[in-house]
Amino acid sequence: MSSALNAKELLIRAVECDQVGRILEAQTLYTEGIGQLMQFVNGEPDEAKRKGFLTRIKEYMDRADAIKARINGKLMLGEVVSHVSIDENDTGFDYDQLFGKYMDDKTVEIMLEEPYMTQNYQYQNLIRFLELAATNCPNLKYFRLITKEYKDAKNPDQQETNLGQIKGDLERRNVTVCIKYEDSLHDRKIYLSNGYIIKIGRGLHFYKPANPMYSIGLVNYKFRKCLQTDVDIWRNSSAAS
Amino acid sequence: MSSALNAKELLIRAVECDQVGRILEAQTLYTEGIGQLMQFVNGEPDEAKRKGFLTRIKEYMDRADAIKARINGKLMLGEVVSHVSIDENDTGFDYDQLFGKYMDDKTVEIMLEEPYMTQNYQYQNLIRFLELAATNCPNLKYFRLITKEYKDAKNPDQQETNLGQIKGDLERRNVTVCIKYEDSLHDRKIYLSNGYIIKIGRGLHFYKPANPMYSIGLVNYKFRKCLQTDVDIWRNSSAAS
Repeated sequence: MSSALNAKELLIRAVECDQVGRILEAQTLYTEGIGQLMQFVNGEPDEAKRKGFLTRIKEYMDRADAIKARINGKLMLGEVVSHVSIDENDTGFDYDQLFGKYMDDKTVEIMLEEPYMTQNYQYQNLIRFLELAATNCPNLKYFRLITKEYKDAKNPDQQETNLGQIKGDLERRNVTVCIKYEDSLHDRKIYLSNGYIIKIGRGLHFYKPANPMYSIGLVNYKFRKCLQTDVDIWRNSSAAS
Repeated sequence: MSSALNAKELLIRAVECDQVGRILEAQTLYTEGIGQLMQFVNGEPDEAKRKGFLTRIKEYMDRADAIKARINGKLMLGEVVSHVSIDENDTGFDYDQLFGKYMDDKTVEIMLEEPYMTQNYQYQNLIRFLELAATNCPNLKYFRLITKEYKDAKNPDQQETNLGQIKGDLERRNVTVCIKYEDSLHDRKIYLSNGYIIKIGRGLHFYKPANPMYSIGLVNYKFRKCLQTDVDIWRNSSAAS
């Protein structure tokens, strides 16, 4: 496919996603489509045509910027619906019981900002979260993970391989996955397209290890001791996208 | 404590357990108490006293035999309450959904016959089962595991260490644990003291591995593919002990 055709297709899909409120996916598609269109424009000898393309590009960029503002707005505004303080060594908390009821059939997109995805238990926590999504969000179409890039000296492909497995698995379940690396990321955040935002001070990783390994709590994290953290959940006032 | 005093205490506890229907624990206590009493009798020079002890021992042995007959009777008789056939590659089955409702606050004792406890995933399955027990059976006092003894050439203490961790963990939760090794064991069986018996052709180990490792189903076994097996549950007609 020529890059112009490819760009056209990406941008049509971007507009479609934008219109039905799938804004995370729309943003990704706008960015990709604009990139492709740029490449094409650079190779276009006819100046009039080039100008036409640049005008179109400008329009798409404005749309993408508007989405960005909407996403950020969603993340900042709204009413607090739940606050839970977890004390050091508390037990009785798992993802389902903390925020499962906010993940529902209206959740079409999920964005997870989680800086640390480097250790086995962190990938397992991600799977735990996604299993909850697979159970509670039958209409999930798009998942965006933002995390820090990590190269283990002994096994430099480890992060790519593990996240690649997870991406492949979700895509077999018809969920489009976008993984973005941001090295300055610190805060943890879960954004659900039904209007809920979940902020946990330690993100998904607030459990102490099972001790000893083979003991109650190895699998069912309600029995696991926790690290101190706060869980704040709020709801965007303008609600579903 | 002298072995006579020790034996007396064990046998008093055995009778107490027997009377309140904790027959698995009673059986263990009778066996231990009789063993201790035997040692004491062997060292008793007074023949009249020795005869007296031997009469007592005979009584306790009869009681222990009666319990054995009751346990076996429970395992054989009763009405079928549930039959589920799991086909190869089926999904949607976890322990809770298959038999969780039969594990309740009337379950004071559990006996698990599970020949294979040798691999990591098998210990994990045992933990999964015990987590369900910890969740659903608040009055659980006694757990008996019967399995085959296993010595890994590379790590001969592995089974002992892992089962020791599990035993220690349950005992911290006030559940007495008895682990028995029987090398001829083949059949799998779960006996609950509320009168239910759960028989799964493959025992606890009817799941295929997660593939790839990091995918939905790693933690939540409802998403795991299964091996073909039958789950039959029946209830003892004379009911709770």
